[in-house]
Amino acid sequence: MTRMTILTEAELRNLVPLDLEAVDCVENAFRALATLQVAMPPILRLDIPEHRGEVDVKTAYVPGVDGFAIKISPGFFDNPKLGLPSVNGMMVLLSAKTGLTEALLLDNGYLTDIRTAAAGAVAAKHLSRADSTVAAIFGAGVQARLQLKALMLVRPIAEARIWARDATRAEALAARLREELGILVRAEADPKKAASGADVLVTTTPSEQPLINADWLSPGQHVTAMGSDAEHKNEIDPAVVKRAEPYVADSLKQTRRLGELHHAIEAGAVAADAGFPELGAIVAGKMRGRRSPAAITLCDLTGTGAQDTAIATLARQRAAAAQAGTIFES
Amino acid sequence: MTRMTILTEAELRNLVPLDLEAVDCVENAFRALATLQVAMPPILRLDIPEHRGEVDVKTAYVPGVDGFAIKISPGFFDNPKLGLPSVNGMMVLLSAKTGLTEALLLDNGYLTDIRTAAAGAVAAKHLSRADSTVAAIFGAGVQARLQLKALMLVRPIAEARIWARDATRAEALAARLREELGILVRAEADPKKAASGADVLVTTTPSEQPLINADWLSPGQHVTAMGSDAEHKNEIDPAVVKRAEPYVADSLKQTRRLGELHHAIEAGAVAADAGFPELGAIVAGKMRGRRSPAAITLCDLTGTGAQDTAIATLARQRAAAAQAGTIFES
Repeated sequence: MTRMTILTEAELRNLVPLDLEAVDCVENAFRALATLQVAMPPILRLDIPEHRGEVDVKTAYVPGVDGFAIKISPGFFDNPKLGLPSVNGMMVLLSAKTGLTEALLLDNGYLTDIRTAAAGAVAAKHLSRADSTVAAIFGAGVQARLQLKALMLVRPIAEARIWARDATRAEALAARLREELGILVRAEADPKKAASGADVLVTTTPSEQPLINADWLSPGQHVTAMGSDAEHKNEIDPAVVKRAEPYVADSLKQTRRLGELHHAIEAGAVAADAGFPELGAIVAGKMRGRRSPAAITLCDLTGTGAQDTAIATLARQRAAAAQAGTIFES
Repeated sequence: MTRMTILTEAELRNLVPLDLEAVDCVENAFRALATLQVAMPPILRLDIPEHRGEVDVKTAYVPGVDGFAIKISPGFFDNPKLGLPSVNGMMVLLSAKTGLTEALLLDNGYLTDIRTAAAGAVAAKHLSRADSTVAAIFGAGVQARLQLKALMLVRPIAEARIWARDATRAEALAARLREELGILVRAEADPKKAASGADVLVTTTPSEQPLINADWLSPGQHVTAMGSDAEHKNEIDPAVVKRAEPYVADSLKQTRRLGELHHAIEAGAVAADAGFPELGAIVAGKMRGRRSPAAITLCDLTGTGAQDTAIATLARQRAAAAQAGTIFES
């Protein structure tokens, strides 16, 4: 008999808000990637083109953490026509000692949203200028909203611009964020103007063409690109990858294959075997992040199984403390 | 909100016994592998050596089947010391149209046992002589028992020998099977004697050294090797792979990396790029299986995601018909 805790999306939303503890737990996951023998196999990927569907399965074992998550992330892009969200999924938390299922986190993708936003905060904390006050967010989806909230946990953001291909959605998100965050937020229809004067830029779109031009950028800016989690996605001009000091990957193995780095390599802007720091090495103090207030920094986030294991473990700890969830035996 | 059915191991044991319909459903999965554009990505594998643990995640999408399974199979080999089974796991059945989770099959590995035994039956049905009456089973675990039961669904087996490294366990299994199946079953301490005169040999062990010597085999025998599902496992003398007419793989991509074929290639008995029929192609009538009553045939089973999708779909259909399981919303 296996005894497991089942947690619903509603319970997980209560237990794991986007807060500094979530950021810390994801920061620790990045540190572990650089300092411990983390086992993080390549992503399992299944494509179902006839339904415009794709599924990613990620996992990672972090030594010292007593559980590990296996995350199932489906994206089915015709779902909105059926009145369903495109992105769904769940995590299974297994004991690292016995392999038994300890918890089923039926989050419909919520925990992925949180750990992805938290990674944006970790990137900004280690790469953006400490006095960053202006943010530019590209995109108008869940991540656009959460990335701005995450930035505010680590930087004194007082003003934000929202650019999205659909201006109406940008306006709606700006209005919502003004109310939610109590800072100056406005929609900006011109992406170049959105970028101009921003201290931190975050791209959160499924774009297949670069959104951010290298010649729009100015000294001291930091860019986090988190939309590119598949080969065909591309948000950043390859020249930015080349120019960044430094370009930083969440996982070089992944960004060489999936991220902005992959497109910069394809475009010939950087060599296929060029070395770059990983975010975890910077968190751990093994590599330098920002070298000067005038540097332009870039962080390329494709999403790692280590983040999933971290957030799933946090969810389970909080559920245990709150005695939340349904116990199920099988 | 996602609405899913949760099925426990006890419910699944009731719903999906090892019967001819289970064999047919797995046979259809093999046929699909040879005739349809099945998407079956490489197995995701995570190792946790400090706890002698490993986890495989398998999946496959079969066109025309409205769901697909993602199977999580942990094996933690120190578990028996803790009074726990080594092998556990579960399957998640997702809609192939929307990616939504339709069912959680908390089977603790039971459905894997069934689909693995069913594959043994499919192999015997297409490769062993139709008049096979004597079986030799190597191993004394769950698969040893199920493989014999599965054979009896497709061949007129009247006598079986059980060999296992631990003679006591072989005796115990022989006694149990005599009672359960009502045929002549005896333990045999000498593996060569167990093999001699058997029409069908099935190896079900975690052996890392060949158990079956090529010079023990005689014309007309069929061998199914199902223990080798990882690089280090090896049950069959490479000379058998070379001599078999034909050698058959469940998935050549997998057996070249994981199965008996992998060891035969390493030993230099066959070329790394040698072509062989897959079981599905034989099921579909696209390739020939047994060519004569005197041939020695060998089937190398590493386990495919297509089998998991097939058995999970059968389980869900039967659960729906029986209104079994617990509905859970998240």
